[in-house]
Amino acid sequence: MISSATITNIPPVAAPAITPDALVFWPAMLRSFIADAFISVGLSVPDAIASADVLATADEFGVNTHGVKLLHAYLSRLAGGGTRPTGRPRITSHGPAWAMVDGNDALGMIVGNFGMAAAVAKARTAGIAYVGVKNSSHFGAAGYYALSAARQGLIGITVANDTPSVVAPGARKAVVGTNPFAYAIPAKRHPPILLDIAISTVAGGKVYQSRMLGKPIPGDWIVGQDGMPSTDASLYPDRAFLVPAAGHKGFGLAVLIEALSGLLSGAAVTSGIGSWMHISPSQPSHNGAAFMAIDPGMFGPLDVFLDRVDGLIDEIHATPAADGIADIIVPGEREFAHQKRCKVEPLVLAEDVAANVRRAAEIARLSLDDYVQI
Amino acid sequence: MISSATITNIPPVAAPAITPDALVFWPAMLRSFIADAFISVGLSVPDAIASADVLATADEFGVNTHGVKLLHAYLSRLAGGGTRPTGRPRITSHGPAWAMVDGNDALGMIVGNFGMAAAVAKARTAGIAYVGVKNSSHFGAAGYYALSAARQGLIGITVANDTPSVVAPGARKAVVGTNPFAYAIPAKRHPPILLDIAISTVAGGKVYQSRMLGKPIPGDWIVGQDGMPSTDASLYPDRAFLVPAAGHKGFGLAVLIEALSGLLSGAAVTSGIGSWMHISPSQPSHNGAAFMAIDPGMFGPLDVFLDRVDGLIDEIHATPAADGIADIIVPGEREFAHQKRCKVEPLVLAEDVAANVRRAAEIARLSLDDYVQI
Repeated sequence: MISSATITNIPPVAAPAITPDALVFWPAMLRSFIADAFISVGLSVPDAIASADVLATADEFGVNTHGVKLLHAYLSRLAGGGTRPTGRPRITSHGPAWAMVDGNDALGMIVGNFGMAAAVAKARTAGIAYVGVKNSSHFGAAGYYALSAARQGLIGITVANDTPSVVAPGARKAVVGTNPFAYAIPAKRHPPILLDIAISTVAGGKVYQSRMLGKPIPGDWIVGQDGMPSTDASLYPDRAFLVPAAGHKGFGLAVLIEALSGLLSGAAVTSGIGSWMHISPSQPSHNGAAFMAIDPGMFGPLDVFLDRVDGLIDEIHATPAADGIADIIVPGEREFAHQKRCKVEPLVLAEDVAANVRRAAEIARLSLDDYVQI
Repeated sequence: MISSATITNIPPVAAPAITPDALVFWPAMLRSFIADAFISVGLSVPDAIASADVLATADEFGVNTHGVKLLHAYLSRLAGGGTRPTGRPRITSHGPAWAMVDGNDALGMIVGNFGMAAAVAKARTAGIAYVGVKNSSHFGAAGYYALSAARQGLIGITVANDTPSVVAPGARKAVVGTNPFAYAIPAKRHPPILLDIAISTVAGGKVYQSRMLGKPIPGDWIVGQDGMPSTDASLYPDRAFLVPAAGHKGFGLAVLIEALSGLLSGAAVTSGIGSWMHISPSQPSHNGAAFMAIDPGMFGPLDVFLDRVDGLIDEIHATPAADGIADIIVPGEREFAHQKRCKVEPLVLAEDVAANVRRAAEIARLSLDDYVQI
């Protein structure tokens, strides 16, 4: 069987149907809801607004797995104290092109914005910068922080480690996390190039979704406790582990991410990291992360670089497509198209997302009627 | 069908049988042969010795696709002038944590060593450094330069672009190269962690090998000119293109590498790069490359970092293996084991490699009898 990734490019995200249990938000009101919810558990107004933007942007991008769907979990941990509502990241040491940050168990989005801001500031004088972060927590979509560097004319790279869920090739027990890897490259005529991936064949959420729907999965997504491939999604996550994308290639990338985000930063690694969904809400998860920025404007005229990026995008777009493929796209193009649509159409959050939003509203004691379009 | 990468770890490299057409070298003599060959086409003695080490190390690692097998092609291009025997890379501009290098169409191995040395030097004061290279040429295995940083206690990362051979997902024409990505992380009790991969499912050489053997290939290696997957290796390279590893993930990595090695460095990108095997030996290929180094010793005691790397390796080794899997290994472990064996057993170069070595000896007017064990 041929992987669908081989012959197809990424299909557009279809808006879910407006079923009775769906929720419909205009993005501005979704941001307000998330910010108000964060304020209800003790975040400052600026922190709440900034963190809401991270989650709402993921929903605008059509990446619902990393948007408001997760809000209830952040709220539980902020209420429980495992994530500290008034925690503030701080730089513990730094040099010409680097900084070490103690996240102080603050909300991951606050730490993430802080980390990339530090990397951008250092790169603006040094050309490139590395910022290592310890005592962080789940920070939503890694691509958000990379993109924030690109919005300022820099290349941004974000990586993070996580509790083990992915096996080494041939193993029957997970040893690394899905360890997100994201980058963004600024362009001029085009939106930035933006990639945000897990190092596993697919994210755990996708296996979980198949489990909920009772559907079999392709043979290269998980292995069972015997280390052998399985198409039975019901085994996940208790009796199965994720498989690294492209075998030793994805695993090798995971190990580099573990080094950059965990070993270098002084953060916990592998089994030292708590699963933010499973540990007590009063326990910190101790995630590590790393933020890197490169300032092309230091090496020559920024415009020359941006024109070259546009040229590369044009060249990729001009590649002839196989039958049945509408367009050849660059990483991030689907997400920006989805975001653009949100300017004229409200966001429809499907039942599974809406159920979690209702849980978040309960924790925050907010009435969804004050925010939703429908 | 399940990819073999899913269930198996990387098998050990078996030494090829000593057939009548094979060649057998002790590594020191292989290095002498390569260096003498480079000297014969005008390289200085130090450049020849340093470049020979790059190729011979690949053979010691069991990576024959990037070792002496390629020597004849380097010699042809040095003799033809497309690669300049007396070309010397130079730094054209630099800052606290970066440098831009003009490779001056020198031999890629000379440029590669120069680029990583500059990155290491900058990282030792800045913490991290980026070095972009233009006007380079094929430099052998990217991992060699990353490893040289790790030997000095730094994390090394090497990327390079190449003439298009890989499609974007859904396309029917190649737009990016196999764009190597390599990193090395120093350890204390263990050898460094070392990954050196192409962003395609497999390297073109592997498809070519199946073509020579008349064997069908898995469905996720190539697409034909219609953009559809094919198992017919005979289509490659004239009527087929390589597929990116893990679809949009591998393609996304290729685009980042194109930006780091080509767009940022001022080098050629995509179709602007000549295929070093197909263009006239008198034409430069204009490859770009980038070398990055991170100095863990800048952020805290180096020993603490190295101990943590050892700990991560131990944890991966301790993962239980599936039935039929001997050991769970970290990236590079197979290569170092192979190199260790070369201390007690000479290298056996199989017929296809040996044939190319004979071509190299002819170009260099050297007698192989002066170097081989058998």
